[in-house]
Amino acid sequence: MFPNLFTPFRINSITLPNRLVLPAMVTRLSGEDGFVNKDITDRYVRFAKGEVGLIVLEAMAVHSAKSGPLLRISSDEYKPGLKDLASKIHDTSDSKVVPQIIHFLKIARSGWRQKIEDLSIADIQLIVEQYGQAALRARECGMDGVEMHMAHAYTLSSFLSKKNKRPDLYGGKSLDNRMRLPLQVMKRVREMVGNDFTVGVRFLGEECIKGGYTTEESAIIALKFAQAGIDYISLSAGGKFEDAVHKDGEVLYPYTGYSGDRCMPPMEYPDGYNLHMAESARRMLKRHGLKTPVIATGKIPSPEFAEEILTDDRADLIGMARALLADPDLPRKARLGETDKIVKCIYWNICKALDENFHQVVCGLWPKDEIQAPYSEDTIAPVWPVAEPLSVLVRSGNIRLSWKQATDNEAVMGYEVWRSDDNGSTFSHIYSITTSMWTDHLAASGIAYQYYIRAYDIAGNKSVSSNIVRAELPLEVEIPKEGPKPIAKPAFLKPPMAKPVVTTPENVTA
Amino acid sequence: MFPNLFTPFRINSITLPNRLVLPAMVTRLSGEDGFVNKDITDRYVRFAKGEVGLIVLEAMAVHSAKSGPLLRISSDEYKPGLKDLASKIHDTSDSKVVPQIIHFLKIARSGWRQKIEDLSIADIQLIVEQYGQAALRARECGMDGVEMHMAHAYTLSSFLSKKNKRPDLYGGKSLDNRMRLPLQVMKRVREMVGNDFTVGVRFLGEECIKGGYTTEESAIIALKFAQAGIDYISLSAGGKFEDAVHKDGEVLYPYTGYSGDRCMPPMEYPDGYNLHMAESARRMLKRHGLKTPVIATGKIPSPEFAEEILTDDRADLIGMARALLADPDLPRKARLGETDKIVKCIYWNICKALDENFHQVVCGLWPKDEIQAPYSEDTIAPVWPVAEPLSVLVRSGNIRLSWKQATDNEAVMGYEVWRSDDNGSTFSHIYSITTSMWTDHLAASGIAYQYYIRAYDIAGNKSVSSNIVRAELPLEVEIPKEGPKPIAKPAFLKPPMAKPVVTTPENVTA
Repeated sequence: MFPNLFTPFRINSITLPNRLVLPAMVTRLSGEDGFVNKDITDRYVRFAKGEVGLIVLEAMAVHSAKSGPLLRISSDEYKPGLKDLASKIHDTSDSKVVPQIIHFLKIARSGWRQKIEDLSIADIQLIVEQYGQAALRARECGMDGVEMHMAHAYTLSSFLSKKNKRPDLYGGKSLDNRMRLPLQVMKRVREMVGNDFTVGVRFLGEECIKGGYTTEESAIIALKFAQAGIDYISLSAGGKFEDAVHKDGEVLYPYTGYSGDRCMPPMEYPDGYNLHMAESARRMLKRHGLKTPVIATGKIPSPEFAEEILTDDRADLIGMARALLADPDLPRKARLGETDKIVKCIYWNICKALDENFHQVVCGLWPKDEIQAPYSEDTIAPVWPVAEPLSVLVRSGNIRLSWKQATDNEAVMGYEVWRSDDNGSTFSHIYSITTSMWTDHLAASGIAYQYYIRAYDIAGNKSVSSNIVRAELPLEVEIPKEGPKPIAKPAFLKPPMAKPVVTTPENVTA
Repeated sequence: MFPNLFTPFRINSITLPNRLVLPAMVTRLSGEDGFVNKDITDRYVRFAKGEVGLIVLEAMAVHSAKSGPLLRISSDEYKPGLKDLASKIHDTSDSKVVPQIIHFLKIARSGWRQKIEDLSIADIQLIVEQYGQAALRARECGMDGVEMHMAHAYTLSSFLSKKNKRPDLYGGKSLDNRMRLPLQVMKRVREMVGNDFTVGVRFLGEECIKGGYTTEESAIIALKFAQAGIDYISLSAGGKFEDAVHKDGEVLYPYTGYSGDRCMPPMEYPDGYNLHMAESARRMLKRHGLKTPVIATGKIPSPEFAEEILTDDRADLIGMARALLADPDLPRKARLGETDKIVKCIYWNICKALDENFHQVVCGLWPKDEIQAPYSEDTIAPVWPVAEPLSVLVRSGNIRLSWKQATDNEAVMGYEVWRSDDNGSTFSHIYSITTSMWTDHLAASGIAYQYYIRAYDIAGNKSVSSNIVRAELPLEVEIPKEGPKPIAKPAFLKPPMAKPVVTTPENVTA
């Protein structure tokens, strides 16, 4: 079914079993001590069980600066835990694993943040050495490579940034100056790990802020990394401090502005919204005869779309973060041709909201209170209790669906909502939800909608489709004579959050 | 050469001679009295002379609110001037002409601005009527249609916006509510002008701000306008107050934030950056069996790219604002197969900077002090005074080109800079400049560059290519032992601006 997706892919001395990549994703599952713990281990072993080609472990600090819960690779004391994690992943499947290594600057609840302009040359030289040492530890721990984090709001990204305001040879308007530290880091990392160890980099295809860099420069950055011997390039977008919204008494979260949306495009964005960035970098590399693989990321929801991207030669590898969080078994299910069993991510960004509010990151589609994705080998699908479980009600200018709960031999996990706006010619999966009621806030008057739902269990087995219901909002374009009456604001569902627990004055996400 | 581009295109009862459209562009050429004057007339007759298929006149106010220089269509006294303008355009070529009609809210130098939440029902009803009356005047003036401005930071766009905070039937989270006023305006306009008069609408394909709407909703908006009988849909992007930067003592300019860049993508953005918005709207229309034409805009620089877009069926009509400002004769030159005579826009956004600073809008490539594009039927190209006019110097980490000035029987207008970064396999036009020196701030070390230049005259005749020069910046990735020395900031050229003249407390651009 997916000939390209399941062609093994060689990078340096390792071979990925397929072309799916889990990009680094914050989990908040570690303690503040920075050691690998059981929850972290369970999270990544779960991804390995699902057979993703490459697991990029969440960003771990190359230095010892304070932060919230965050893994560390900043001294040898962290090596046993990381070694055990790599080993458990390798014992689980053919998935390869690389840690993402990060340096970040200080940030305070007042809104103050340290800037790269504040760093002395000695500080900069220390960063180079810290990256080198961290990369060496990654190799010593049995990792399959290492990924240098140069994206979003963090130190090396701020050097690459067009907003880099350093007046010296590490900054200013010159792209060469802005790349000086990143290339020094890369050189040192390579010296430390040797030529046969995979070294990748993640940086921004576009900063997505006013005056930030675009694909014009990211293609050059990609070229220069490739010329310097990088083994793979992983592109992200946005996630900058510059447009983040500061909440009183909280540290600045770099994904609260427009650039944060572009980093993790929410449901209202088209699939593959950032794909042109990978295309642009690859065009540049090809023109220079380089074959450095480029990982495309950003709302790539399905193996079908991933295969299409590879077939059209728009990327070398496909990164899926949220889609794999929703269903770590997506790669295995795709390999087995069981795509209909995939639990589909809806890009509602509950995961992002949890991170933003200092909670452990889970998927909003997982069973309540679980901190890991469920797993089952069950093959029996949920069943409907009645022939026509789905009802529809038009109310307050909205279309409200409700349904009888399905039953399952194990457990019903949720319901997919499918909609047609063209008289049933095409139906699209527009939502998934764990409860038995849903309001379509995007329905517009004058359009005839049809809906059906499917129940799915924790193995992803789908029930038969429910009955189809039809609804249309009344067309109202008359000027109200008396003036329109206020209506209640639609009650959007909020992520189920406990009181935020903040334990340190600093916080970092990756 | 351009079979699709020069296929006449029917909209309602008019037929465009080709598929190129001049979107509304602020000129600041009118007086504050709002009457058509000679400069305005000359500007648009010049576009007609260049044979663009459809001229959309700069936004003119449907109401009498104060503003800076802005055309008006808010009472019958403006009709003679507009009638004369339409007539002169029609006398010049087959170009069709429609005015864009706008309603905007109050804005003050303090940063305060009136919001749609402040409008009473009576205010809203007045807006509906003002649009209706303005559209009728457009018809009475002999215009070929009328375009309702519902884009950027202005009143109707703020109703469509996802940031619409009205608590009544004209706002909130419901797209139906947000479309209520725009559809009422459209209905009234149609009542006033009749079914045989072209009525178009310009709105945003994406708001490009945090929490703004995306193509998910703009496709529905397009569908509903089409169902309601709109004759064409013109899509823009961004240009919102929400991310604009307020300068002390100046009225907020809605193109100063990231969304302003997305509205008029500057040179560092890829060509056709907003094309996916037109594609999304057209997919929706097609699925509903509607053929309402969609105009794509946003950094579409050349007839070649325009033809490709039409061939690939990605849009029905091609909007070019800045490219036609740089060379109003682009359509005629393309029709005659004289594409090499086109004066190429470099998207440096001098035009935008002039508007932002309250100056008359001209193109930075036009001869100094001219307020209209030059015109000549001359066919003799500029010549170089020596065999090798171009020299190159590597200095301060930059590549600096300088050249001997070319001579021409009429006047040299400028120089195109062409660059290869792949050993001469491909050369791209990367800049045009009126002086005889240029620094390549985007050159990166370790890449071998080649450059040549071409001189062009006011008719667009190009000289032969100059000699090719080669340059490469030294690869420097060593950690400086003593610490790097500060270097001077590159002196970017600024648009040549006189002291801003601000005459009223309010200001509006479209």
